[in-house]
Amino acid sequence: MEKIRVFCPASVANVSCGFDVLGFCLKEVGDEIIIRKSKQKGVKIISVEGHRLPSDPRKNVAGIAINSFLNKYPSNFGFEIEIIKRIKPGSGIGSSAASSAGAVFGVNKILGDPATKDDLIKFAMEGEKFVSGKAIPDNVSPLIYGGFTLTRSIDPIDVIKLPIPNELVAVIIHPQIEIKTLHSREVLKENVPMELAIKQSANLAGMVSGLYKNDYDLISKCLVDEIVEPHRSSLIPEFYKLKDVANKAGALGCGISGSGPSVFALTKGNEIAKRVADEMKKVFKNHDIGIQCYISKINPNGIKIIPSK
Amino acid sequence: MEKIRVFCPASVANVSCGFDVLGFCLKEVGDEIIIRKSKQKGVKIISVEGHRLPSDPRKNVAGIAINSFLNKYPSNFGFEIEIIKRIKPGSGIGSSAASSAGAVFGVNKILGDPATKDDLIKFAMEGEKFVSGKAIPDNVSPLIYGGFTLTRSIDPIDVIKLPIPNELVAVIIHPQIEIKTLHSREVLKENVPMELAIKQSANLAGMVSGLYKNDYDLISKCLVDEIVEPHRSSLIPEFYKLKDVANKAGALGCGISGSGPSVFALTKGNEIAKRVADEMKKVFKNHDIGIQCYISKINPNGIKIIPSK
Repeated sequence: MEKIRVFCPASVANVSCGFDVLGFCLKEVGDEIIIRKSKQKGVKIISVEGHRLPSDPRKNVAGIAINSFLNKYPSNFGFEIEIIKRIKPGSGIGSSAASSAGAVFGVNKILGDPATKDDLIKFAMEGEKFVSGKAIPDNVSPLIYGGFTLTRSIDPIDVIKLPIPNELVAVIIHPQIEIKTLHSREVLKENVPMELAIKQSANLAGMVSGLYKNDYDLISKCLVDEIVEPHRSSLIPEFYKLKDVANKAGALGCGISGSGPSVFALTKGNEIAKRVADEMKKVFKNHDIGIQCYISKINPNGIKIIPSK
Repeated sequence: MEKIRVFCPASVANVSCGFDVLGFCLKEVGDEIIIRKSKQKGVKIISVEGHRLPSDPRKNVAGIAINSFLNKYPSNFGFEIEIIKRIKPGSGIGSSAASSAGAVFGVNKILGDPATKDDLIKFAMEGEKFVSGKAIPDNVSPLIYGGFTLTRSIDPIDVIKLPIPNELVAVIIHPQIEIKTLHSREVLKENVPMELAIKQSANLAGMVSGLYKNDYDLISKCLVDEIVEPHRSSLIPEFYKLKDVANKAGALGCGISGSGPSVFALTKGNEIAKRVADEMKKVFKNHDIGIQCYISKINPNGIKIIPSK
């Protein structure tokens, strides 16, 4: 294979009850990456379309992830990369994860799949580490495994692919302000009251149970964040208003997507999703902050090869 | 119905990764309670066989739980109770839960089932509160719902009955020393490092996933306690030695049962369970502390009516 084009979906990490461990990826929203073999060894970023990102591969998460890949699986040739960036960096829907996971996924395909899924997660995590200061694969895991994932352990990598209830739909509102993951980690406390840690773990376990049982009521009850939301919500404009209108419009629940500022809601079915999206958009009507809004089913496959144009 | 006899199984709470929320009950180990209608209103404890317990119903968890029941569902007649106590109080395998849940289960049957399962848990929790200072239903829930349970929420009560892999067997070693639940709560910290809280929640969620998937390897990996065991293990004689021999003999995992001193191991199948039990018993050979050992499958039904003799 000389060239590959991959779709790298956006993703929602944390999902209220699963800080740093739970995540899912979207179907209709994502970047594209084109990777070409080149004679010159190493990684060269040819172009970045859509959003401004460094073209120095040592400062670009896709380049960092590929270099980490090539350290373990050296190659006699190099790679040229074009990134078509549709997910805005700093949006909270896994922009850096899409770039880094998409890049190593593509390189692995070109080289004939030498790396395992867990290898790919590790390499992509190097990209994540560069932007957020911490290598957490909660956005990367669903991109590599597809669907809804629980990253049970990082060392060693252990990802559990969870079932996806058929009618589950995600709504994303992205207020156009940037929050650095690094900064959104700083507002968190180092310690958690035992009582809240227990409640949070029970909700995460309940959520997992709800996904297996296809039980939307249970999923709804478990979409609670006792630990992170109280601290991070202050960074997100109109957060509690968004949550309130989403819930009133019939959402199963609503919370911060990753480290924000995007806010996600989950719904049962597309009709409710549209209603929830409309109500959430209204919150920013006549507001000085612009928004983007996405509605998407959960993507069961994660990153995928698409036809080269 | 004038009289009822119920079997009230022993139970294991916490199960390493699910502090205060996870629990299962045993098949072959438990108390019996006989409850008879009486003309005189209120609760009278006629006899306690097996272990010394207060016969004053205001100081006996069975009496406390029944009185809590009768506050919500008053009755024109009273109840006489005989308790055949096989689970030693303070053993860590739900002795007080068996008495309090068994008592309200029986009274509810005699009165024609006016109370819901969640009501019964609430009444039984009053008994638990009396002995441990905190009303946590992690032992009571599996007795009322049967099997393996996740108590997702206490207020309101929300219990999720989890699937039980068919070959799952529990081994219990009960070193004959007494630890008051009250004391074993005192050694715990009020705050948990965020990092440990995340790991623990991921293991709990993984455990739930393992139960749904019938995945013994996953269950094994998740039987880890990052939060409670490091503090409570010092109260239990030979804890790390027991854990070591159990794991070496093929256990899926091993941890503190409830607040101890009992130690549980889970195994795949009876053969391994016997081997694990033998190895754990050897630790106490020539030891000045006596032990009791139980091997039991998980009891899918919880408390049940048995024929009156």
